[in-house]
Amino acid sequence: MDVARAFFQNDRRALARALTWVESGLPQGEELLKAARGRGRARVVGLTGSPGSGKSTLADRLIGAVRERGETVAVLAVDPSSPFTGGAILGDRIRMMRHHKDEGVFIRSMASRGSLGGLAGATVAALALLEAFGFDWIFVETVGVGQSEVDIARVADTTVLVLTPAAGDAVQAFKAGVMEIADLIVVNKFDLPGGDRIVQELRATLEFAPPRPAGWQVPVLTTVAQTGEGTEELLKAIEAHHRHLEEHGLLEPHRLERARFEIASVIQQLGQEGVQQSQEVVEQVADGELSPRQAAARLVARALDLAEQGGEGGA
Amino acid sequence: MDVARAFFQNDRRALARALTWVESGLPQGEELLKAARGRGRARVVGLTGSPGSGKSTLADRLIGAVRERGETVAVLAVDPSSPFTGGAILGDRIRMMRHHKDEGVFIRSMASRGSLGGLAGATVAALALLEAFGFDWIFVETVGVGQSEVDIARVADTTVLVLTPAAGDAVQAFKAGVMEIADLIVVNKFDLPGGDRIVQELRATLEFAPPRPAGWQVPVLTTVAQTGEGTEELLKAIEAHHRHLEEHGLLEPHRLERARFEIASVIQQLGQEGVQQSQEVVEQVADGELSPRQAAARLVARALDLAEQGGEGGA
Repeated sequence: MDVARAFFQNDRRALARALTWVESGLPQGEELLKAARGRGRARVVGLTGSPGSGKSTLADRLIGAVRERGETVAVLAVDPSSPFTGGAILGDRIRMMRHHKDEGVFIRSMASRGSLGGLAGATVAALALLEAFGFDWIFVETVGVGQSEVDIARVADTTVLVLTPAAGDAVQAFKAGVMEIADLIVVNKFDLPGGDRIVQELRATLEFAPPRPAGWQVPVLTTVAQTGEGTEELLKAIEAHHRHLEEHGLLEPHRLERARFEIASVIQQLGQEGVQQSQEVVEQVADGELSPRQAAARLVARALDLAEQGGEGGA
Repeated sequence: MDVARAFFQNDRRALARALTWVESGLPQGEELLKAARGRGRARVVGLTGSPGSGKSTLADRLIGAVRERGETVAVLAVDPSSPFTGGAILGDRIRMMRHHKDEGVFIRSMASRGSLGGLAGATVAALALLEAFGFDWIFVETVGVGQSEVDIARVADTTVLVLTPAAGDAVQAFKAGVMEIADLIVVNKFDLPGGDRIVQELRATLEFAPPRPAGWQVPVLTTVAQTGEGTEELLKAIEAHHRHLEEHGLLEPHRLERARFEIASVIQQLGQEGVQQSQEVVEQVADGELSPRQAAARLVARALDLAEQGGEGGA
């Protein structure tokens, strides 16, 4: 089939194929992306939090709430590429599958293949495809702690941090600096002991947080994803944040930040590839015969030569 | 003073100055690095673990044990650059200060300024300086969770993961994939309840871990840094790992990996700078007029041109 044509005719199989292209870094993906970019207008929501916080169940509830409004949603679940932890995480995903026959819902798992551990550039490219396909909402869910969270705040319009009343959860988030990037904080599993206390702690802590763009006040919400309690309020809070961004002209900066992130990812990849392939240059740096900067110049020049030989749009 | 000359005459003030040059990316630092690189032979030990695990106190004990052997040690404490958490972390550092008048001990705090959140290339450059200065040991301590840990495993010969009996500590480490990069695991604060249980859990978990180079078996040790209990055993285990690397020819790959890391950091930095400075190119990518790959090629080529105009060794 002509995938590009089918894609623009809203064929879901074409979307799936195009996502695979983009994920594998194939030139066809880049071609399609070029045509797709700038189309559509989705609300991009990042869902982040420690493992076991119930993010997937919460995402499932949010999907339900969005669908009740008659709007469509794509979920991008970003897995860390560790083979050691992969199994448990994929198990979580299955809970979202009750929506998988719904035409208004599209769920995709992607490996987080950023060579330096964070969100891969391909994830952002996938966002552009999903947006062009016409989804009203895109949820990006990350697993684990660390760089992916920081990256998600760069690419999402709204970042939701999911915590639980579990001892130390808030402290960990605080110390890891994740609280600084959350636009909304949700205490999920609020029916567990300690719920009220953690909400109070979070609100107290937020008073010392740096101010947010255009005076946004980070709300602390509570949910019980298992029963659905608090889902509607959470979705309304996300919408309120989106309106805030809109009213203060803050959506465009997010769109540009996504492009920045993609470009930076490509550069990083060029560097990693060059460094892996050129044992000789690496040895010269280790021995002090070449400075890292001189080595970088050589490797990038070489990568650019290769890219040009393969054609401007090539891999 | 002639800093370079003083540096090679083992002047500690010259070392401090040179580290500042390197940290600030000044051309003098690059000059000195070129002369220094390849000199010295230190054992580079990464100490990593969640906040509150007692890493700093443990580092303090290890310094003591190393000094008792008559060997010298430099400590590089890498702070995440968050202004929100900075205060608490610097407080931890002070505990190590009882060694600060000892000529055989050099302690330096560095901001983790990797533009993508991980360990900065400057940190690795600092390692090369400390090694050339002649220290027998270099401890690199990272604060927080995430990318810095993964990076440290790339640059350190031996990576020590510090955990506590606290509920969830091991589970978090497991899920974040940090356990995969540890050469040694230490349960610190072993006098707290649950110590035996976590040791058992860790050993059971390690049976499912991917095999390590040359059949290294990751040991689980226990310490009480407050009293010094277990310090000597820990240092011996670190030495055993170093011997293992030596006997199997695995030290050289670590040295090359450090050079790789530095080169990749420079490329990444050039890219980030380009992306921040070129609004026009970013907009073209966001609008689909330019692919991220084309944009990356343009920005890096431009950055390298600028660098060359400023001289080969320039900033």
